[in-house]
Amino acid sequence: MTSNIQLDSSGRLKHLLTLEGLSKPLILQILDQAAAFADATQGRDKKLDHLRGRTVINLFFEASTRTRTTFELAATRLSADVLNLQVAASSTSKGETLLDTLKTLEAMQADMFVIRHDASGAAHFFAEHAAPGVAILNAGDGRHAHPTQGLLDMYTIRKAKGDFSKLKVAIVGDVVHSRVARSNIHALRTLGAKEIRVVAPPTLVPAGIEQMGVKVFHSLEAGLDGVDVVILLRLQKERMLGAFLPSMSEFHRDFGLTKARIKHLKPDAIIMHPGPINRGVEIEGDVAYGPRSLILQQVSHGIAVRMAVMAMILGREPETEVAPKTKTKKSARAAR
Amino acid sequence: MTSNIQLDSSGRLKHLLTLEGLSKPLILQILDQAAAFADATQGRDKKLDHLRGRTVINLFFEASTRTRTTFELAATRLSADVLNLQVAASSTSKGETLLDTLKTLEAMQADMFVIRHDASGAAHFFAEHAAPGVAILNAGDGRHAHPTQGLLDMYTIRKAKGDFSKLKVAIVGDVVHSRVARSNIHALRTLGAKEIRVVAPPTLVPAGIEQMGVKVFHSLEAGLDGVDVVILLRLQKERMLGAFLPSMSEFHRDFGLTKARIKHLKPDAIIMHPGPINRGVEIEGDVAYGPRSLILQQVSHGIAVRMAVMAMILGREPETEVAPKTKTKKSARAAR
Amino acid sequence: MTSNIQLDSSGRLKHLLTLEGLSKPLILQILDQAAAFADATQGRDKKLDHLRGRTVINLFFEASTRTRTTFELAATRLSADVLNLQVAASSTSKGETLLDTLKTLEAMQADMFVIRHDASGAAHFFAEHAAPGVAILNAGDGRHAHPTQGLLDMYTIRKAKGDFSKLKVAIVGDVVHSRVARSNIHALRTLGAKEIRVVAPPTLVPAGIEQMGVKVFHSLEAGLDGVDVVILLRLQKERMLGAFLPSMSEFHRDFGLTKARIKHLKPDAIIMHPGPINRGVEIEGDVAYGPRSLILQQVSHGIAVRMAVMAMILGREPETEVAPKTKTKKSARAAR
Repeated sequence: MTSNIQLDSSGRLKHLLTLEGLSKPLILQILDQAAAFADATQGRDKKLDHLRGRTVINLFFEASTRTRTTFELAATRLSADVLNLQVAASSTSKGETLLDTLKTLEAMQADMFVIRHDASGAAHFFAEHAAPGVAILNAGDGRHAHPTQGLLDMYTIRKAKGDFSKLKVAIVGDVVHSRVARSNIHALRTLGAKEIRVVAPPTLVPAGIEQMGVKVFHSLEAGLDGVDVVILLRLQKERMLGAFLPSMSEFHRDFGLTKARIKHLKPDAIIMHPGPINRGVEIEGDVAYGPRSLILQQVSHGIAVRMAVMAMILGREPETEVAPKTKTKKSARAAR
Repeated sequence: MTSNIQLDSSGRLKHLLTLEGLSKPLILQILDQAAAFADATQGRDKKLDHLRGRTVINLFFEASTRTRTTFELAATRLSADVLNLQVAASSTSKGETLLDTLKTLEAMQADMFVIRHDASGAAHFFAEHAAPGVAILNAGDGRHAHPTQGLLDMYTIRKAKGDFSKLKVAIVGDVVHSRVARSNIHALRTLGAKEIRVVAPPTLVPAGIEQMGVKVFHSLEAGLDGVDVVILLRLQKERMLGAFLPSMSEFHRDFGLTKARIKHLKPDAIIMHPGPINRGVEIEGDVAYGPRSLILQQVSHGIAVRMAVMAMILGREPETEVAPKTKTKKSARAAR
Repeated sequence: MTSNIQLDSSGRLKHLLTLEGLSKPLILQILDQAAAFADATQGRDKKLDHLRGRTVINLFFEASTRTRTTFELAATRLSADVLNLQVAASSTSKGETLLDTLKTLEAMQADMFVIRHDASGAAHFFAEHAAPGVAILNAGDGRHAHPTQGLLDMYTIRKAKGDFSKLKVAIVGDVVHSRVARSNIHALRTLGAKEIRVVAPPTLVPAGIEQMGVKVFHSLEAGLDGVDVVILLRLQKERMLGAFLPSMSEFHRDFGLTKARIKHLKPDAIIMHPGPINRGVEIEGDVAYGPRSLILQQVSHGIAVRMAVMAMILGREPETEVAPKTKTKKSARAAR
């Protein structure tokens, strides 16, 4: 049916590597499942048992407490056993060593790997070599993709704004290095956003990005004019200076979102950022916690979206011989 | 009813920041609940489900394996999901960055934060800014307070000695830097100890401590004469030398608890220490594991006391719409 | 009945420190229990509840992600609460400090310690000082023993080959530093292997090893001739060069298992390695993942064997006053 490595022969998700190529119905199905989980974990008892007895391994070749934490909580709230492995990238730089790591952990009967790696394509490499039944979730690979971030951003936009076909969305900042930007652009196009803008200085816009169906702006004021959604990108300070940017303060002067600037936004425009924010660079602290900001909601939505992806992938083939054991009313409700 | 930030309008515990200002009935209620948990976790199966589905985050800005471990075990035995985050204090020195961390983790639907920080007042800062329903437990803030240590010491004293009104208690060692000393003095006064002594060289006694209702002794022999309870404090070797103390061996000579010295104690006096001990500094190894020492019992009591505080805080508002799910006879017994 | 510290008065396992001195029936009982667990964890839900409410502490004085991970998964799949503590060996070098650590953690009501330490005898030291009811599992102590590795190797051999009395087994490589070799030799002798060979350059064979009942070969070709099982040992690169070996490439030339060399093996011979492999040193990558290799199966078997040991030790004294709570059919099946 499809050659996409992330889908099985029936078009259901078996890995999540990129949002590129995922259909609109499939993305919407994930968002709906996430909404069900957000609802089911509202109360005091956030524990569901969809992944009871399953083993999820967070395999991080790049440190990221925030992303790792949300994947860990998502899996834990679904009752999976979670193992966190932080691997120094240097010691596993070669493909065959990566493979040794994957195969060894698979032999421990891991059901799912959450992979973060600074090399674009690392998650694909793992998915190509994974044993049948073992799922790979891309938690960020180089500049390539960060699909769960893209999904949680879509969840956030849909919850705040509803219909994508009426929305103008501006993605602001370091687009050239950003896997978040790439995943968001794919998702916004698939979901039919009216207009997608990229707003950045010329050095931070990749050549040929217009072919992804976006409009490029080099002025913040023009780029934000009339938009419904502003997605700020995190500036990786350490790799920016010199090569791409004269200084942080110059970036802030030209592209930072300040209290003064949000006055020009549409009154109901929302502001998003994948976090962690650099106060006084991409955004002022007052704006980050101001009434238009959905930055903290994004964090919550990230857990619901990750629960949805995990449950959909590991729940694919119903196991007919074993009856669910301790399913509560609550989890049955969210299971759909 | 009270302006104390740790209590709700009905006077029930909602954070635990300090023992200062906690009423005698409330402290006794915690100790009683701890006794129930100690009893309920005596057997092979130490698992209760009071915190099932709750998320407890150990947020440690200062390393402490022992304290972190006891909080982790306490939460785990109550079936909470526990996340351990060790944060380098340097990267979060500013209040607004602390706030970013708190708000981000709150958005992950954390129910409780166990905070350790080297700045006095850090736990209060978090409690002031925490969202409604989010609880802060102080696991030690600078020189200010270490309330669960104070509670476990009271638990230990009560279990061994009963009525506080008959007890003379000596706190020995580095009082000036000790949050343990401060928390113990508050609790002992509230519980009505007959006499509280502080025994240390002049450089290790804070000025004006007599106003807390304690007697100061600069001689160990005089300070220990006739006491029922000896609480030794841990000497932080690294910050002691030079400024406060000529040498470790001189401290041991004058204030170390040795086999020879315990002969002068009352025959039924007990010896306590918050750990980890410095053998040959505050105490000789033989004394630490001798018959009068309750040092290891303190460790056990620490878990029971932490379970009690967690269950009392997170069990505050009964949830009427959801029936308890897998409550066993054992946990029902301890629940009271 | 026996003076062996690892057995109770009825001859049942209470610690696992070494395979030396364990009887054939006891070893076979462990392997049978492991087979039952391997079977019970085949499906989607790998969770059993034999250790529910028990606390297992992984106390590693030497880093080893792979070994720690398999112990952690084994305990977790039996529903234990697991605590991982990585301790710098330097800070705990003295026996009395080790004892402080043990006693403190025991006071947290730990039921079992999994100990790895670079000093031979460390696990025995802990077992000698452990409180009644507290179990010690040796996860590798210096050059002395690695009993669960020996057991998983026996499990692997029995599963592939059946009857030990017909088997010739060659152990190849750095025997002198290898606790794996020592544990395997003890187990193979007890289980009655027909012939045990040690194949290594003279500098890597300990003097007098023939007294353990093995034949020594200094030529790989002769040593592998006619064997049913090849167990390769990991070469610790860092401590090899100079003192024991002229170079890695020379070792590989003379003792590395290559595609060319496996042609001389018996057609049904199996190849094993405790991992992680050094590609191009002990073994070529193609051979490691080739059809005769059972290296990945060893990893899986390691979890089943560790589950078996944990369940047998902690399940020793049946607790008559408390009925099992949530025992499922599956776990009852595996419990035997």
